[in-house]
Amino acid sequence: MLDTGFYPKWTERAPEKGTYRSILKWGDPNEFKHPNSRLYKMMKEKLNMTDDDFKEKQKEGNEPVSYDIPIKLSKYQIDQFKDFVGEENASIDDYSRLRFSYGKTMIDILRLRNGIVENVPDVVLHPRDKIDVQKIVSYCNEQKIPIYPYGGGSSVTRGTECVKGGISLVMTTHMNRVLEINETNQTVTVEPGLYGPAYEEILNNAPKKLNTRRKYTCGHFPQSFEYSTVGGWIVTLGAGQQSSYYGDIYNIVVSQEYVTPAGTFKTMDYPATATGPKINDIMKGSEGSYGILVGATLKIFRYMPENRNRFAFMFSSWEDTVNASREICQAEFGMPSVFRISDPEETDVGLKLYGIEGTPLDTLIRFRGYKPMERCLCIGHTEGEKYFSENVKKKIKEICANNGAMFLTGYPVMNWEHSRYRDPYMREDLQDYGIMIDTLECSVMWDNLHKVHQGVRKYIKNRENTVCMTHASHFYPQGTNLYFIFIAKMNDIEEYKKFQYGILDQILKSGASMSHHHGIGKMIAPWMENHIGKEQLDVLKALKRHFDPNNIMNPGGTLGLDLPEEEKRKIK
Amino acid sequence: MLDTGFYPKWTERAPEKGTYRSILKWGDPNEFKHPNSRLYKMMKEKLNMTDDDFKEKQKEGNEPVSYDIPIKLSKYQIDQFKDFVGEENASIDDYSRLRFSYGKTMIDILRLRNGIVENVPDVVLHPRDKIDVQKIVSYCNEQKIPIYPYGGGSSVTRGTECVKGGISLVMTTHMNRVLEINETNQTVTVEPGLYGPAYEEILNNAPKKLNTRRKYTCGHFPQSFEYSTVGGWIVTLGAGQQSSYYGDIYNIVVSQEYVTPAGTFKTMDYPATATGPKINDIMKGSEGSYGILVGATLKIFRYMPENRNRFAFMFSSWEDTVNASREICQAEFGMPSVFRISDPEETDVGLKLYGIEGTPLDTLIRFRGYKPMERCLCIGHTEGEKYFSENVKKKIKEICANNGAMFLTGYPVMNWEHSRYRDPYMREDLQDYGIMIDTLECSVMWDNLHKVHQGVRKYIKNRENTVCMTHASHFYPQGTNLYFIFIAKMNDIEEYKKFQYGILDQILKSGASMSHHHGIGKMIAPWMENHIGKEQLDVLKALKRHFDPNNIMNPGGTLGLDLPEEEKRKIK
Repeated sequence: MLDTGFYPKWTERAPEKGTYRSILKWGDPNEFKHPNSRLYKMMKEKLNMTDDDFKEKQKEGNEPVSYDIPIKLSKYQIDQFKDFVGEENASIDDYSRLRFSYGKTMIDILRLRNGIVENVPDVVLHPRDKIDVQKIVSYCNEQKIPIYPYGGGSSVTRGTECVKGGISLVMTTHMNRVLEINETNQTVTVEPGLYGPAYEEILNNAPKKLNTRRKYTCGHFPQSFEYSTVGGWIVTLGAGQQSSYYGDIYNIVVSQEYVTPAGTFKTMDYPATATGPKINDIMKGSEGSYGILVGATLKIFRYMPENRNRFAFMFSSWEDTVNASREICQAEFGMPSVFRISDPEETDVGLKLYGIEGTPLDTLIRFRGYKPMERCLCIGHTEGEKYFSENVKKKIKEICANNGAMFLTGYPVMNWEHSRYRDPYMREDLQDYGIMIDTLECSVMWDNLHKVHQGVRKYIKNRENTVCMTHASHFYPQGTNLYFIFIAKMNDIEEYKKFQYGILDQILKSGASMSHHHGIGKMIAPWMENHIGKEQLDVLKALKRHFDPNNIMNPGGTLGLDLPEEEKRKIK
Repeated sequence: MLDTGFYPKWTERAPEKGTYRSILKWGDPNEFKHPNSRLYKMMKEKLNMTDDDFKEKQKEGNEPVSYDIPIKLSKYQIDQFKDFVGEENASIDDYSRLRFSYGKTMIDILRLRNGIVENVPDVVLHPRDKIDVQKIVSYCNEQKIPIYPYGGGSSVTRGTECVKGGISLVMTTHMNRVLEINETNQTVTVEPGLYGPAYEEILNNAPKKLNTRRKYTCGHFPQSFEYSTVGGWIVTLGAGQQSSYYGDIYNIVVSQEYVTPAGTFKTMDYPATATGPKINDIMKGSEGSYGILVGATLKIFRYMPENRNRFAFMFSSWEDTVNASREICQAEFGMPSVFRISDPEETDVGLKLYGIEGTPLDTLIRFRGYKPMERCLCIGHTEGEKYFSENVKKKIKEICANNGAMFLTGYPVMNWEHSRYRDPYMREDLQDYGIMIDTLECSVMWDNLHKVHQGVRKYIKNRENTVCMTHASHFYPQGTNLYFIFIAKMNDIEEYKKFQYGILDQILKSGASMSHHHGIGKMIAPWMENHIGKEQLDVLKALKRHFDPNNIMNPGGTLGLDLPEEEKRKIK
């Protein structure tokens, strides 16, 4: 396709306050990242679009939020809440009610662009501390008023959506403090509404800010890092981009404090115990359906960026890439920190995104025989003590070389680092022209990786003019995750849902887990019973009955705990 | 004290079949390990005993097992069980009923020596497979007959004791098979009754026995290794002597299958998931109170003994030892495999046990100024890929040197290795002369280690002529365990219980966990509510009600789930 010289006028203006767009836009209102010209060209090719498709924007959501959904709580009840948290920490305006219900799923975005408002809470509350939360939970339990905890709002599972009305409980406004650092134990205790950057910043600067001897890092860096909270990470079982080294959030959390209808408790701080099933672990991943997380103690790690080593490789095939990755995870020299392998289609896009396409390096890669749409990119970091970190890189280079890979220096990784939190900004640009870009992810044991990859890809690629990029980015000796990014010209909600359901069906059928690190929320809930089996879902329901007998905690589907029979998705 | 030349006539004869002694004796009936002359001399000194005390043996338990405890089940019920498992797999003789109820706590041993029989099951069953277990559980649930799973019987928490009669379900007789190895995933699936040595042997010889490319290791080596089972490790949350490197059993188990009164289910095989609270983890540590573990898939590790590096150090003080250990755990160069630090009193004994006392090395240690009853021994291994393993050792040497330690070569470790599973054999010798030797253990965060160590030691040493040795042997960046070994001239059960209760009180009061890797069983159950709090014990009880509404699974105290108010131990 010829380079026509045309390049779309991407939006470069912060959304107006009070508009739907101000809710749907990712991240900082004044930050933008646009597809570069290579990516734009590629989209036209792959999605079968022309410059004309990029001349007029569609449904930008620039209208002011306004709707007519009555508040079901009585004035008396609302006054009670105001009494608990203070008048200034309770809102009932249209904007707040919508802003603190929707998350960042494709369905949320499409609804916002279309001005579709549903499932808003009656009141938005901003508790100031644990005592406020206790009063709210106790009163809601007595009055049977639903409560929906709201962290950074980056949920891609409809996790925060207030489908039964009631209260949206915003944890970020006040409950965002670092309470204590314990340098002897290498732990820190925080409130759940603390955002990633504020958390990392205080740890990196701990000697100044917390009077410690050393600098620290939190070790948890999901793509949503800038707009997600510590509490959100924990209750949805997140994993950061460096989880292969630092562990998933499940491994990082030492103890937690919860306010539940059945009481308030803090799990104990021990490095390990043999005192029965671990309550601390039972609560992780409960997605607000058992209680409200009000505090957490987490492991921290020494901040040693000077020991970081970067690497990138090009492999001839996906099989070689996977084989090398498995060997890296099983050879017992320690794990890399960032580690990310891209399948051929993602590699093709990655070379454009990370600024490799068209460079002499690109020429060299082609010259060396790594063929487009067969070759696979691998990028990563090592971390830790100096010699440990060096040895991990050295062993990775050996294994990759043994699997026919070409070393690409650390350059592509630095480009990736630069954009690691910025790619989501491109979503608005694409959607302005009716292009859907979304992701689904799962986890696999090594022996099932190819089946899942092929099965899901086949389903997605079966739709014409649809991009499907896959990577694995969280590694374990027993397997990894698979992360699918799909792009298509599509802006009809029903069409989108049908397509997405098909992908989720395929993930289930192929034997992968239904989520590696996004959680279940209300979006994947219909698959839960089929996925984990009735006996095991019944265990989660038994816990639910114990903690929340009146079903006030994030009700309406979360984790499939209270889903009516007809809403369950049954595949065989 | 003079060396009198007298040395006791330790028993060197296998117990007669059918005797109490044949049940109480540790391990292989024909294996013995006696205290060496240095240890014998030390005991006399420290316990204020003379040669005369070692001339006549007391209560050896040589009588044949015989008692009169009626079987409460009807003949019809027993016939049902025979029908399920086959006549040959059901026993109702006195010996079997006792043999498959008691474990290896001090209280068990003292009872056996005194011919005290209580809490025996009505019938002992040896299920052949999962189907047998399902039939038994289903029938018992219908008939409200208690079931007590029995693995290796090495419990030191009265975990297996059939306090409500019913069934002892022996998992080791038939359900001890390796079902599958998956080399791609590095996992193996086994039945729960598989003993440690058989498990490790098949993995070490996997190329021959399972047709694999590589040799593997299970990575889990508790001191009870030779007489404990995979299932027992999992349901009591065990940790092996190399757990600092390989992880506790909690980390090693990938998935499990349980037969419960609420149904049979197998948790799924994934390296990680974000699909709600993890049922796989909820079941670990349930100590038979939720259901019967009938199969487990575990991680395995490459068997690379050629990469093992050994080290030992002598430190000037316990403070220096702990400081160095903490630095080793937090410096991010990877973890040692075996790692064990002994406090001054244990060091004193260790030098005798590991053959150092009286050698030129001993002289050198003294010459270098490491003072008895101040100095502390540290021994360990590193494991893993060659350079990784070397670097871990190198860094450990650096850190130990920085903390004033003297390198002792790998020699003491090799002696420790030789005796790693054999020390328990000495228990019979000591008890033959009325000496109690027992252990209790807990876990601590780094910042609480000294308080717990001092508090528990103070209580134990408050009793005259009592040895208290302490070590830490399972390490994490956030803390470690503390393992107390106490020796005293004591053979009265009530006196012992009172003493033990005091130690457990002290562990609780000082803020340690009530168990790092022995579990809770029925022995520590009275402390559970005070320890984890009513709200959290209620969570475990809610799960209990779900899985086992008729309370037939290991009833009578396990984990404190069904303890009457008056049996709860309340400390403030």
